Parts: sequence; C-alpha cells; structure tokens
Amino acid sequence: MEILDIYPMKKFINAPSEYVVEMLAGIYAAHPRQLKYVADDVHCLVNAVPAVPAGKVGLVTGGGSGHLPLFLGYVGEGMLDGCAVGDVFQSPSADQILNVTKAVDQGSGVLYLYGNYSGDILNFDLAAELAGFDGINTATVVGADDVGSATADRRSKRRGVAGIFFIYKIAGAAAAAGLGLEEVARLAARAGDATKTIGVALSPCIIPEVGTPAFTVAEDEMELGMGIHGEPGISTGKRESADRIIDRILPLLLDELTFSQNDQAAILLNGLGATPKDELYILYNRIHQVLAERRIAVFHVYCGEFATAMEMTGFSLSVCKLDAELKGYLAQPVNTPFFIQPRLDN
Amino acid sequence: MEILDIYPMKKFINAPSEYVVEMLAGIYAAHPRQLKYVADDVHCLVNAVPAVPAGKVGLVTGGGSGHLPLFLGYVGEGMLDGCAVGDVFQSPSADQILNVTKAVDQGSGVLYLYGNYSGDILNFDLAAELAGFDGINTATVVGADDVGSATADRRSKRRGVAGIFFIYKIAGAAAAAGLGLEEVARLAARAGDATKTIGVALSPCIIPEVGTPAFTVAEDEMELGMGIHGEPGISTGKRESADRIIDRILPLLLDELTFSQNDQAAILLNGLGATPKDELYILYNRIHQVLAERRIAVFHVYCGEFATAMEMTGFSLSVCKLDAELKGYLAQPVNTPFFIQPRLDN
Repeated sequence: MEILDIYPMKKFINAPSEYVVEMLAGIYAAHPRQLKYVADDVHCLVNAVPAVPAGKVGLVTGGGSGHLPLFLGYVGEGMLDGCAVGDVFQSPSADQILNVTKAVDQGSGVLYLYGNYSGDILNFDLAAELAGFDGINTATVVGADDVGSATADRRSKRRGVAGIFFIYKIAGAAAAAGLGLEEVARLAARAGDATKTIGVALSPCIIPEVGTPAFTVAEDEMELGMGIHGEPGISTGKRESADRIIDRILPLLLDELTFSQNDQAAILLNGLGATPKDELYILYNRIHQVLAERRIAVFHVYCGEFATAMEMTGFSLSVCKLDAELKGYLAQPVNTPFFIQPRLDN
Repeated sequence: MEILDIYPMKKFINAPSEYVVEMLAGIYAAHPRQLKYVADDVHCLVNAVPAVPAGKVGLVTGGGSGHLPLFLGYVGEGMLDGCAVGDVFQSPSADQILNVTKAVDQGSGVLYLYGNYSGDILNFDLAAELAGFDGINTATVVGADDVGSATADRRSKRRGVAGIFFIYKIAGAAAAAGLGLEEVARLAARAGDATKTIGVALSPCIIPEVGTPAFTVAEDEMELGMGIHGEPGISTGKRESADRIIDRILPLLLDELTFSQNDQAAILLNGLGATPKDELYILYNRIHQVLAERRIAVFHVYCGEFATAMEMTGFSLSVCKLDAELKGYLAQPVNTPFFIQPRLDN
C-alpha cells in the first residue's frame, strides 16, 4: 500500500508506525563508529566511543522523538553518554532509561538530564529507583527554561525546551573534566538557572501517526511562547516584523537574568524546523543591536537547528548568562554526529 | 508599515528589500572573528582568519542568496577564502567578485568555484578578465552535478546544486596543503566529475520580494529532479514512500559512477529547507541498504542542510565516488561558522 493511500502529508516516510524505528536505523547506519544501541533495543542509544576519562560520571538524557538533533544528537565526545528514545512526542519507558543507565555507568554514578514533562519525570524517577537497586547512584537535573509556559513565580512548572542544550554542554564538559556526580549536577543546575528561552511559531507540525496538524495558526497570526509540541503559550497575536518580535521577546528573557559587569551571554537562536537560516540571521541582527544597547557582551552565538518540532515554522531564542565558571565549560570542544564544536576562544 | 500589510507570508523578515543586507549584517554580527567584508560592501565576504599556509591559492565562490549554508557558509579554515553574495536567486556582480578576488589573492592565483548558471558564468568570466588586468591569475571549475537537469550526453548543460560541497571541500584541503593553482583546479574538477546529485521536492519556496510561491506541487504529487530555484526536473508524479523514492533515484546516480573495488562513497543527504532530519535518516536507511546490496563501501555520510531553497520541502541526494586521492583531501578538517568537520578516520 502506498503511503499516499493512508493520508496526504508532505513527508518522506514509509509506514507512519515505523517512523522512529526507521529513523534510528538510518542514524545507526550513518554513524556506526560513534553511536550504538544496547539491550537489543534501538531506542537505547549510547556513545560508541570510549568515555574520557575512564570512570567518569555518566550523563543520560531521554525524551520523545520529533525534535532532532534533540535529544539523541547530543550523545558523543564531550557531551552525553546515552539517550533513551521515545516515540514521537512520547516519553521513553523506565526500562529503556534503566538499560541506558546500566550501559553508561562506570561506577561514578549517572546524572539524568531531561525536560520538565510529566511522562519523562515519571519514567526517569522510576528508572532511578530501579538503578538504585542495582547499586547505581543517580542524580537528576530537569530543564525548565521556557518562560512562555509559566510565570517566574511558578518556575518549577515551566517546560524544558531548547535551552537544555546549555545544560548538556556544561555538564558534558564538567564530566569530561573528571568532576564527581555532585559537582556535575551542581554545574548542570547552574546552567539551567542561567538559561531562559521563548519560542514563536507561525505554523504547526504533523505527527506522522496522526497525519493532520495538531493545531492551526492563521495566515496573519503568530503564537508567542508556544511549546515544541504545540502547547499554548503566552498569546496569539497578529504577525509582526522580525525586529518587532525580537523587541517583544528578548526583554522577557533579559528581565529574568541580571548581568553583572563580567558576565557574558551565549545566544542560542534555534530554528523549529521550516524556518531558514537566512531568517534566523535577520532576527540575530536585531538581537545583536538590543544586546549592544544594554551593554551585554556576547561570548558565542549558536544559530541553526538545535531542538526542532519536525516541520514547524518558527524559532526559539535562548539566552544563557555566563560567569567565568560556566564559560570555561561551555568553551570545551564537542564531537557528536549532530553537533561539533571546536574549542572556543576566550 | 507592518510587514503584514504588504503580503501574508510565513517568514520572519522586515522589509523584503532588506532581506539579504539584514541577513548579512546578522552573520557578521554573529561571527565577527571568522568573517568580514571588504570594499565597504557587505556582499563581498571573506575569511577573517589568516589563510594557512601563507601564500596559498585563493578559493572564491559566489551566487544568489536563499541557499544557506550555500554559498558563503563554506568560507573559513580549510575550505574557501571568499564569497560574492548576490540577491535572492541572483548572481553577484562582476565588481563584487573582483573585489573578493583582490582581497584573497596572495600572489598564487585564485580559483573560482561556482554553480553552472548563466548569470554567474557571465559575471565570474568578466571578473576573471578584470583580475587579469590587475595581474591576478585565475582558473575556474564550475559545479554541474544535477543529473535531473540534463541527460549525461549534455552534461555541460547541467545545473550545479548541493554536490558543489565536495568541490569546495576537496579544493579547500588541496589549497590548504599548499598545492599550486593548476593542481587545486585539477582536484576540484576531479571532485566535480565524481559527484552526481538529484533532488526531490514536495513544496515550493517563496522569494521574499515576490511574496508568493513560484510554482505549486499538488498535495499528492512530487517533483523529481527539481532545481534549487524550482526549475523543472525530470517528472512530476504521484508521491511515493521514502523507500520507493530512493529506489527510483539512487540508481540514476550510481549508473553514472563506476565504482572500482577500492573506491568508497561519500553521501550528502541534503534537506532543502523544511524537511526534518528525522525524514532524512529514514531516507538514509534505505540508501544504506541499496549501497550494501551493490557492495559499495561508505566512507562518510553528511546528513543535514547543506544547500537549501529557503523553506522548500524536499531533499537532494549526492553521491561522490572517492579514490584514495580524493578521500585524503575529503578527510581533512574544516572550521567555518556554518560547517565544522573534524579530521575523518580512514
């Protein structure tokens, strides 16, 4: 049966039910030296390159599919050790998380880093309990960077979105430096507290097994603060120019981050799927102007696709406030099949 | 005036007439240590990092905007020295090309590498003539990898598309190794001859200053062999499954490349804009199977966005046949703001 007989959809897929399994098969086939799976389950992805230093703290993430390069794309040298891969927008199971945990533990404990979603929390907490029975010490830091999902006084209710990149990056470098579980968790939490994100969407995405958009955005409207699964945000409003959107959203992030004189910003300007890099740089042009007006120095700009919602049109903007400690870890090199960073100059 | 008053369009832009200039301003603001412009013209982009070795052959490209990371994204260490940036889907001027040429020439000559489009040919040829008056020796290698644009017996009529990546990569490494203009041009031409590409599109893109799609693809159809500006290809047909599309297009490429026992393939699976990486890996899963059936060994897989058409839904597949010489240059490291490659293992 042709895919077209099932439903019309502008996707390159075979059977929708095989979407995640075939995607994972393609990833393992394309990157056989860097990635492998354990427990005979393609959803249990781990780094195939020996972790450096030997005996380092293990870093494990997990979450639903449909966000590439999030989450599995950050497994590799200098970043994460493993990822439990769920179905599209679904949490992986506790068993899958446990299998990844066992595979990456080297006796120094395992740190769980994932986004603030109830299904993920449930399964990671259960996996942590089961790992404890096996004598594996775990700790958890949850990403909750999306200022569009709850007000500052209800910070613990916020969703985790693209800003988890900074948690991965800084924790990854700290673990690679040989720090212990408690110290790596402390730095991961600091990175999370220092990072704020907001998203803007112009069109929805389609879950393959559903086949139709989960919501619609009118031709002349935009969704401010929308989540990466299409969760409602702050407001639906008339679409505005690139500059005006930045003038509206960047202050929401900066208002929650007090920059001291020696702090610098790292910017993550993330395409949600269908938005071209051209437009991200048009947006960055205005971001740069606003930061200069506020005398905030920029250490590094990440511009591209870091946490997507398949073919959603839109972007998210994350600001990470760096002091000397966080900056030192952010600057360390990374090499995964989806993300490569050379050592950054000071 | 709000952008919305001009026309409805799912883009993040300000005035459409400022699209390219604001994009470039954002790029220079984001990457001040790596990129700069010359001749007081933001369209004349050059590498801000001193070329290694000193006195090396200069590599210059150019072409229309709307294809990021193509063309300017490949300017940087280990790859190109400069890029003349045109308006959306328009050639840069001969003067702009000449200014970039003068800026990057170190006395060893300059190699022009660009796609096979009449406007670009006209302006690069004129720039070469003008550079000659200034005592700068130039040579030219034109990318013409798109098998969907003309039959094999009319190869010189073929368009240049994503496969130019391999010309850039191999010429960049050859120039960085200190080879002379004639040798670098020979290797660039070999890389071009060894690379074949075909594209498949499911939806068009919108040129900002036009505001409406240049063409349409029916909900249940696909365009086979379409160019990166929406030029017509081999056929319009009913949309098919990912596997069936690969089974249809991969043989078209392999039929023109005779692999000897020691040759290996490099694969460039390129998203045209709105197609998620998830789908590219589903496509790669089948590519891998077909190559295994044909006993073609894969040296490296590049999977992501390398040459886009803004928000077009679709992908292109390039195969580059590597002998030992080409592979040695492909494996060398690169560091540009848009493309980073560590040294690849043999």
